[in-house]
Amino acid sequence: MRSVIPDYLAEALGDVEPDTAGQLADYIPELAAADPERLGAVFATPDGEVYGAGDIDTEFTIQSISKPFAYALALADRDFGPVLAKVGVEPSGEAFNQISLESDTGRPFNPMINAGAITTHSLAGSEGMNPAERVERVVRGLSAFAGRPLRIDEAVCVSEMEHAHRNLAIAYMLRGYGILTEDPRAVVEGYIRQCSVLVTARDLAMMAATLANRGVNPLSGERVVREPVVRQVLSVMSTCGMYDAAGDWATQVGIPAKSGVAGGLIGALPGQIGIATFSPRLDAHGNSVRGVSLFERFSSDMGLHVMEVPAAARAIVRSNHVTGIGPNAVRVLQLQGGIGFAGAERVVREAVSTAPAEVRVVLDLTMVYSIDDVARRMLLEVVRRLTLDGHEVYLVDPESIMPDPDPGDGGKVTVVGDMGQAMI
Amino acid sequence: MRSVIPDYLAEALGDVEPDTAGQLADYIPELAAADPERLGAVFATPDGEVYGAGDIDTEFTIQSISKPFAYALALADRDFGPVLAKVGVEPSGEAFNQISLESDTGRPFNPMINAGAITTHSLAGSEGMNPAERVERVVRGLSAFAGRPLRIDEAVCVSEMEHAHRNLAIAYMLRGYGILTEDPRAVVEGYIRQCSVLVTARDLAMMAATLANRGVNPLSGERVVREPVVRQVLSVMSTCGMYDAAGDWATQVGIPAKSGVAGGLIGALPGQIGIATFSPRLDAHGNSVRGVSLFERFSSDMGLHVMEVPAAARAIVRSNHVTGIGPNAVRVLQLQGGIGFAGAERVVREAVSTAPAEVRVVLDLTMVYSIDDVARRMLLEVVRRLTLDGHEVYLVDPESIMPDPDPGDGGKVTVVGDMGQAMI
Amino acid sequence: MRSVIPDYLAEALGDVEPDTAGQLADYIPELAAADPERLGAVFATPDGEVYGAGDIDTEFTIQSISKPFAYALALADRDFGPVLAKVGVEPSGEAFNQISLESDTGRPFNPMINAGAITTHSLAGSEGMNPAERVERVVRGLSAFAGRPLRIDEAVCVSEMEHAHRNLAIAYMLRGYGILTEDPRAVVEGYIRQCSVLVTARDLAMMAATLANRGVNPLSGERVVREPVVRQVLSVMSTCGMYDAAGDWATQVGIPAKSGVAGGLIGALPGQIGIATFSPRLDAHGNSVRGVSLFERFSSDMGLHVMEVPAAARAIVRSNHVTGIGPNAVRVLQLQGGIGFAGAERVVREAVSTAPAEVRVVLDLTMVYSIDDVARRMLLEVVRRLTLDGHEVYLVDPESIMPDPDPGDGGKVTVVGDMGQAMI
Amino acid sequence: MRSVIPDYLAEALGDVEPDTAGQLADYIPELAAADPERLGAVFATPDGEVYGAGDIDTEFTIQSISKPFAYALALADRDFGPVLAKVGVEPSGEAFNQISLESDTGRPFNPMINAGAITTHSLAGSEGMNPAERVERVVRGLSAFAGRPLRIDEAVCVSEMEHAHRNLAIAYMLRGYGILTEDPRAVVEGYIRQCSVLVTARDLAMMAATLANRGVNPLSGERVVREPVVRQVLSVMSTCGMYDAAGDWATQVGIPAKSGVAGGLIGALPGQIGIATFSPRLDAHGNSVRGVSLFERFSSDMGLHVMEVPAAARAIVRSNHVTGIGPNAVRVLQLQGGIGFAGAERVVREAVSTAPAEVRVVLDLTMVYSIDDVARRMLLEVVRRLTLDGHEVYLVDPESIMPDPDPGDGGKVTVVGDMGQAMI
Repeated sequence: MRSVIPDYLAEALGDVEPDTAGQLADYIPELAAADPERLGAVFATPDGEVYGAGDIDTEFTIQSISKPFAYALALADRDFGPVLAKVGVEPSGEAFNQISLESDTGRPFNPMINAGAITTHSLAGSEGMNPAERVERVVRGLSAFAGRPLRIDEAVCVSEMEHAHRNLAIAYMLRGYGILTEDPRAVVEGYIRQCSVLVTARDLAMMAATLANRGVNPLSGERVVREPVVRQVLSVMSTCGMYDAAGDWATQVGIPAKSGVAGGLIGALPGQIGIATFSPRLDAHGNSVRGVSLFERFSSDMGLHVMEVPAAARAIVRSNHVTGIGPNAVRVLQLQGGIGFAGAERVVREAVSTAPAEVRVVLDLTMVYSIDDVARRMLLEVVRRLTLDGHEVYLVDPESIMPDPDPGDGGKVTVVGDMGQAMI
Repeated sequence: MRSVIPDYLAEALGDVEPDTAGQLADYIPELAAADPERLGAVFATPDGEVYGAGDIDTEFTIQSISKPFAYALALADRDFGPVLAKVGVEPSGEAFNQISLESDTGRPFNPMINAGAITTHSLAGSEGMNPAERVERVVRGLSAFAGRPLRIDEAVCVSEMEHAHRNLAIAYMLRGYGILTEDPRAVVEGYIRQCSVLVTARDLAMMAATLANRGVNPLSGERVVREPVVRQVLSVMSTCGMYDAAGDWATQVGIPAKSGVAGGLIGALPGQIGIATFSPRLDAHGNSVRGVSLFERFSSDMGLHVMEVPAAARAIVRSNHVTGIGPNAVRVLQLQGGIGFAGAERVVREAVSTAPAEVRVVLDLTMVYSIDDVARRMLLEVVRRLTLDGHEVYLVDPESIMPDPDPGDGGKVTVVGDMGQAMI
Repeated sequence: MRSVIPDYLAEALGDVEPDTAGQLADYIPELAAADPERLGAVFATPDGEVYGAGDIDTEFTIQSISKPFAYALALADRDFGPVLAKVGVEPSGEAFNQISLESDTGRPFNPMINAGAITTHSLAGSEGMNPAERVERVVRGLSAFAGRPLRIDEAVCVSEMEHAHRNLAIAYMLRGYGILTEDPRAVVEGYIRQCSVLVTARDLAMMAATLANRGVNPLSGERVVREPVVRQVLSVMSTCGMYDAAGDWATQVGIPAKSGVAGGLIGALPGQIGIATFSPRLDAHGNSVRGVSLFERFSSDMGLHVMEVPAAARAIVRSNHVTGIGPNAVRVLQLQGGIGFAGAERVVREAVSTAPAEVRVVLDLTMVYSIDDVARRMLLEVVRRLTLDGHEVYLVDPESIMPDPDPGDGGKVTVVGDMGQAMI
Repeated sequence: MRSVIPDYLAEALGDVEPDTAGQLADYIPELAAADPERLGAVFATPDGEVYGAGDIDTEFTIQSISKPFAYALALADRDFGPVLAKVGVEPSGEAFNQISLESDTGRPFNPMINAGAITTHSLAGSEGMNPAERVERVVRGLSAFAGRPLRIDEAVCVSEMEHAHRNLAIAYMLRGYGILTEDPRAVVEGYIRQCSVLVTARDLAMMAATLANRGVNPLSGERVVREPVVRQVLSVMSTCGMYDAAGDWATQVGIPAKSGVAGGLIGALPGQIGIATFSPRLDAHGNSVRGVSLFERFSSDMGLHVMEVPAAARAIVRSNHVTGIGPNAVRVLQLQGGIGFAGAERVVREAVSTAPAEVRVVLDLTMVYSIDDVARRMLLEVVRRLTLDGHEVYLVDPESIMPDPDPGDGGKVTVVGDMGQAMI
């Protein structure tokens, strides 16, 4: 049996293919010479499955799509404080080529506009790096997101540098404000090299999937950046990623996204999917015309919207029953699924409302496949309170899904591998 | 056993209580006379559980927190097109008392600023309504979100109207642009009545939980608005809800939220929770000082952030095995949990990679508790393709969790109540 | 002999007549019904001579041309401090229908934009006036500028009030900032009545000539406002009068000016001329198309530009000679013309460089026709110093052109009616 | 006798001397090391007289005061069209270090802000000049305005270049818009050299006096630029010269002016005076604190305000009489003073109202010291019309003050040296 997803993608490409609206970026010959008919789309799942249709292995320059990833690298290399001190997180409501600095401090509004992205480039890597080392670190970082070694298109670099007046203007302005502390020209050159990295739609989808997968590349298993970094990057993409149509995108598509002037467009939905499209003709905002259409369709067809209610955790408490009789009676709460705050709340509620008469209480985690940190703490607090109420509490946890099962502070729990051990 | 959640809330309130920063709103005597020490917080779950601590039953005026709900009512009563034609969805990056109209059309940037909210009020209810009917419809709608009949504080109305110069200015400006077509003064009066509705923190949490629960009030079970309306409202709250600190809020808290000048603050995380806090002292942005602190803490402590990866659906395919032997051999894919696009993708993948040799294939949905529309279509397409590949496909679905199980277009499936029926 | 000036004006009108570009103001029926072909131009001199061509006695509403005159009345009635506290003098660089308030205080940028003009109207007359009295005072004031009783077009008032949404918006906003302290609707009604005063091009030219004549109506001889008021009004007209093309106007035309939406346009060049044109079709800035052309032509043809060097006062010292011999020798400085600072400087210089050996020194003012205050003080200081140097100083001043000829502080002068008296 | 003017200046300096408010510019060491107590003021008349008090021969860098003069040079070297195409004339209402480019074209708003001044520098001299030649041309041009060879402070150049980030930013931005077409760094270097020219208050007053004297240096007699250039420069100074307080300056001082960050401040009143002050401490706008006070005082004390009515030309017609009797009767209009449009109008009026019966009409220009072009044309038209009415017209013009006295088109005039010749 063939998968339905490539068919779906192919059908979606077929539907947008006739749309030849928009213009190629033409400020440098390399972009102006792109084949405007190129069209591809890729889905990559957090566990590494890739579905694609169309031109998914054609290389093009990453351009502005490098921005969120370089921002992730800067946050990873310098930590949040120093980066936030130099680049804000506020949507600027302005076009992609605006300066948009805070009027007093000169701090760029966000890392997705050029001023912010140039500053961000200068913050990637450690403080003492020279320009070449910084570029090396950024290319290595982008490669880690993609899961394969990426390289720079040198011809594009040269052309971009010849037309970098505006970026040089921005960099000198930032230097004037002390936001940049290095030679503005060297930073712009580094930034242009970052933007000239060659990628395919497949690469971009995998980079997005690394964001969707909490910062771990699904293929290589490498943790590229930590989870708080991913959350920050996705948050900023969601409010600042699509230039001056942030609100339209947030309501109609609802996928944190970023576009590049070479025609790429990526989106990432945490825990669910990384998406990339490639089609070089751009609308007036500088976003790929057919790419935007595809994303609107994906969001609408598949409920891929950050405000869409995910499949609910209704049935976390699979059963709540007593087994054994008399003094051997045991209260069993059988749990299932992935447990976060909302799921843990239901367990708490069940435990409270039950007010078990039995001395022994079992939390059966056999059918649970994940417990996040807050859920873990809440469940252990349930255990602790049950202990204080005079219960003996057992955790049936054959796969050791509960890390460090110590309720502390008067709480006590016996972890066992199966129900049988809890029944003894 | 007592629930841990009220304890958590009480502890959180205790931590912020010493913070007496900020000022009461004082533009009308009623707000200036509020008790600045009031402090409360409420969690309400999508299935109606309420946890609270502090002053959760003190009444105060809803003020700007009415804005997202009135927007929901307008979208419900007039549909998206007419509402979007008159009120945008773009963050304005400006303070809460700015005019912020699009320069050409006079369309307010979004429904969370006053200009947008005044326009939104005029769009609630049907077109022919008189001002009193419109107020009646809005109060009824807010009551439906809260799950109890709400009433207006008439004294506040009178005071607000005496200080409504700015809102009157906005309304006349909107009338000049043709955005409002009715008497500006009457619209402002209606809007002020909307803002003067009395609520408690408990009410607000339930209103937020109605948003978190896809538009259905968890207590009354009433569908107040449709899901697409909820998605639109939450999206707009996420980008425009917290005035000019949208980016800070989106990154640090990450909960679609809205504050009111009387000290209320709500947040809703789809499928997870509705939150409300109440503390009257306001910061310079007009947001409750202690309310903001509480939300930051809730987000950080509990992973309540829209970009947080929800508990993953890794184990949707619970097992993939063959039962019976020889010609009676049956391929069984046992599924579990709530299935959305990401989960369905895994089923598709399993089916494709298995390429079952057995004629009979069973999809066992016994342990599945929800299937969303895109997942339903994907699973049925799997069924259809298996049929075309020569398989007989059975759906074990004792709770009829799969609506309208017709794969169509050459596909065929036999729905049965248990595995036994599929084995015959 | 017929004067050349009417011929010149007629020729200028003939040249612009074929230009039918622009649109009638059409927001009220009365303006939309104007005859677009009306065309007139008037020059009025500071001593009351009037030259006109075309439709110079057709009545139309004064509209925004009332703004500088109402500003003059407010400055006269309330003094500078209170008026400047509520209305600024900075160009706003914005279109005529913008709000343009200072962001902190709500103070309108200048009295030529609507916000400033509405505020200015509220400042005309004394503080306790009711709205009707204020309108009465303004109409009387405008009439004094024109030199004949003007009246209001009541039909225009009614229509304007029906379309006053934007002005009401502005007024409520100003009320919100405390810039207006009265009922906003009443102020707007009064302002609309001010704008609905009927004038002819002849009236407007005379109003402008009153400004050019230091605030004294050339026909009636009535001092309408004091000189400092005129200077303030002309200065503000020069930077803020022509909306967002202030710089173009200042360089190309260089005549302080103000236009009205009914097609009027005035200009005043201090000491030289008042000009008015009338042609109802407006350009995108809201200025009369043909009016602008005529002013450009007048400026260019006649050197009527505020930065044009006026005919110089080179020959203030008509002669410097000695008459009589021996002990009867008298040093005579014969002056001529109008003497301001620049002229007085030349007298000072002559006196210093001469270092007269003669005891008697005569300043002969027979041919002098004006001495301004600074020149008077400088000449008297010359007298005083000559006295201290041991000279006897005579002032020949048959027409008592030198007021209060007391040099003070050791100075002494003998004023006589003719040279003969000085020679004795 | 000593002149009163130096005393006046000394007194004015004494009054402002105690004011030590403001700060030295400190972005480069050379400016930070200036003696903050330096204080000087100079008046220079259009005919070259110089009055000074205080530190009038101390050298400092001209800085932004070079802007209007470089603008004059660009207008002279390239003509108006090409310059206006690249630099506007609109006040920007922004601080002196803003970019302020028109949003579509990138054209700087005006030549007084840095963006406009950098562009202006690039337009001085002919198009093919290399950077060194351009600087040479600008320094020569500034020297011509000052009437002595000026030189560059090389140490300041070096320091300024090290802190030129913002100007480099502006220049690259301009290059990006195609407003600059040369290497941005070279243009900024040239501009910095222009700003580093050393001047004294005496020099600056003479430069201003050259503007006041229609572009002719009062000392050297060199015509530096043509009159239309001067008019343009003064107009732009009047609206854009004093940064964001344009309106305050225009109303309170009313002298076209320009300040420099080294403490210089100049003003020029056409036909009347050039003024310069020097005091290094600056206010928040970047203008010399004591300089601004001095200008306010000069304006107020001496009526030096562009909207002040100049000493009127009331008595242009000195007499209108008949001499001789019977057939020898001659109508004599004896004129006096400097005649512009306003004066010529009075002659026209006199001629028309007299309707002379005498055949011979004499216009006696003996006491006239200037006739501008429009007045010349109007007087000749009077002559022509008198001819056509049958009169013989004589012009008594001993000093040939009337150039090219040909009325044309049927007009006829006999020019004679004295009345006697006209009586024959």
